[in-house]
Amino acid sequence: MKQKIIDPWGSGLLEDYEKIIKDFGLEMFESKLFPEPNRLMRRNVIFAGRDMKVISEAIRNKKEFYVLSGIMPSNEKIHLGTKMVVENIKYFQEHGAETYILVADLEAASTRGVTLEEARKISLNFHIPAYIALGLDVKKTIFYFQSENKEVMNNAYEFAKKITLNEFEAIYGNADPGKIMAAVTQVADILYPQFKERMPGIIPVGVDQDPHIRLTRDIVRRLKKKKFFLPASLYNKYTPSLDGSIKMSKSKPDSCIELPEDMRLVKRKIKNAMSGGRDTLEEHRKLGAMVERDVPFELMKQHLVEDDDELDKIYHEYKSGKMTSGELKELAIAKMEDFMNNFVKGMEYARKHMDKLNFVKFK
Amino acid sequence: MKQKIIDPWGSGLLEDYEKIIKDFGLEMFESKLFPEPNRLMRRNVIFAGRDMKVISEAIRNKKEFYVLSGIMPSNEKIHLGTKMVVENIKYFQEHGAETYILVADLEAASTRGVTLEEARKISLNFHIPAYIALGLDVKKTIFYFQSENKEVMNNAYEFAKKITLNEFEAIYGNADPGKIMAAVTQVADILYPQFKERMPGIIPVGVDQDPHIRLTRDIVRRLKKKKFFLPASLYNKYTPSLDGSIKMSKSKPDSCIELPEDMRLVKRKIKNAMSGGRDTLEEHRKLGAMVERDVPFELMKQHLVEDDDELDKIYHEYKSGKMTSGELKELAIAKMEDFMNNFVKGMEYARKHMDKLNFVKFK
Repeated sequence: MKQKIIDPWGSGLLEDYEKIIKDFGLEMFESKLFPEPNRLMRRNVIFAGRDMKVISEAIRNKKEFYVLSGIMPSNEKIHLGTKMVVENIKYFQEHGAETYILVADLEAASTRGVTLEEARKISLNFHIPAYIALGLDVKKTIFYFQSENKEVMNNAYEFAKKITLNEFEAIYGNADPGKIMAAVTQVADILYPQFKERMPGIIPVGVDQDPHIRLTRDIVRRLKKKKFFLPASLYNKYTPSLDGSIKMSKSKPDSCIELPEDMRLVKRKIKNAMSGGRDTLEEHRKLGAMVERDVPFELMKQHLVEDDDELDKIYHEYKSGKMTSGELKELAIAKMEDFMNNFVKGMEYARKHMDKLNFVKFK
Repeated sequence: MKQKIIDPWGSGLLEDYEKIIKDFGLEMFESKLFPEPNRLMRRNVIFAGRDMKVISEAIRNKKEFYVLSGIMPSNEKIHLGTKMVVENIKYFQEHGAETYILVADLEAASTRGVTLEEARKISLNFHIPAYIALGLDVKKTIFYFQSENKEVMNNAYEFAKKITLNEFEAIYGNADPGKIMAAVTQVADILYPQFKERMPGIIPVGVDQDPHIRLTRDIVRRLKKKKFFLPASLYNKYTPSLDGSIKMSKSKPDSCIELPEDMRLVKRKIKNAMSGGRDTLEEHRKLGAMVERDVPFELMKQHLVEDDDELDKIYHEYKSGKMTSGELKELAIAKMEDFMNNFVKGMEYARKHMDKLNFVKFK
């Protein structure tokens, strides 16, 4: 997927997401699809998916299904985009899904210049506690390390035979040996919970990860002996970059809030973030804020305000010009500080309970 | 490597092998390189290699080194080409090499339509006993299954990052995802004995397998952290097809003698094999045989007559016309029958001693 077609803060916001849906044959997301939709569902931060009805029916009929995601343990950093994915995993976990989190240590070792041992340590010290702090159940979440999972590697081998180089290039734009191995291993990860027992599963991801979902679905359709369910998926919009550009990126520190991050830095970043306030106070009071381009508001909508009525009130006060952009930023900072404090406490709690974690034991 | 350049029975026999040596930058083999050269070395059935001096010095100085080869367990068939490889492995085993035989069950499962379990059974029931019957030491040979060797798979992942698609295509002529995964896994297999301790190793193969050696050497040169020895290699000429064409092939049953094979079939095949005899007995007595195009003689030279003086005597009697092509074929059949009986007995012996085999145990 080329970045140019994804521009959530461009003037053509809606059309762009619509174009993605059309170009990649996604289903439009509707919040009524799932019972008790979470914040991201209610506010259409989730905008599309694949085979969502299969999962919706599994939830409503209390049938077995799974949710799966991966950790890339190359350094001790995650940002708000990861938080969204984890919140969606949590939603499905609370609605009956077997929950799998794989540590992509192989991929980290081969693409990010860490050793397998370093990748393992990073995930145990940071990512896994962070995922618990963001709401996953310590006891119910099943973790595994890619490098220990022979079944995944063995199946990756078989799956590689089901795809030609041209097809791979059509999905990913280009191909090289490392990328091919990483991709077919991801396919095997995505299907791993079905190796023992066929059941539907959903993968909540950023839409830039859709190529892996497409590759998996293409390969599943070609497997004659094994009848896997096609993986379902759920796509969230990007958390905007603080400067208003396409998306937050770990490679541009000022665009991005890390979890955790020193609140002095976070305050400065939010204060400097792209605002929807007008040039003068007089104008602001008269015309109201341009809420749709305001990054601190979007942070609250996506991440910091759980209650819909509260968000609605903020929206109207800001939109009407009653609340200034400075006030809105202070509010966002206060809420971010609460979140960050809770997150840090959650990490501490998780680190004390690592012995309760459920790692797959391989022979 | 394109087949057209390899034509051991073409008129340009010598030039063709010389061309291979030149095109692929191989070293010419000289039998004085190794102490107590085996039959294949003495008769130049081995014609080239890479880094052979490193291994030669390890033998002479009694330094650690290894020899490695793989089993492709897709069906219960091997032919005389495999016998050559095993005889070369045996040579290095007897000259101090740590001996590794990997069962390429992953590759068989992904490319030959057998399951991992079937591949495992085939190797245990057939290939491993056959390798023992052909002379490998029951206790000293180290076996492993590719699908169980996480270290090999994990390293394959890393190695894949060291090669571009273009480079892969330059070595193999083409590329697809399955071939790429199989190849980088072979690279990891070739280097596996060095994972714990750096030491030189030699891979005896048919020259059509040189691409794997080249790929491994290219990748080793690019690995900065790990300092592996570049793998050495040793190339044998093809055992000719019985009809005189390029090489024996399992896909053309009449071109090929299988191990084991019913001697009634083998007799018929040898009787029909391409001969160097003349059209009439009178002409034969007068001009002598065209030994250089005689397949039964080549079978004796490569496989069936150990003693050089004995072979020399046969050569001269046949070359002079004193021995007819019918007599030569009868001689070849008798020697093949001896070999086949011994081979079958060796398989029976090996199957009774499978408990003594040394399989790598993986955590």
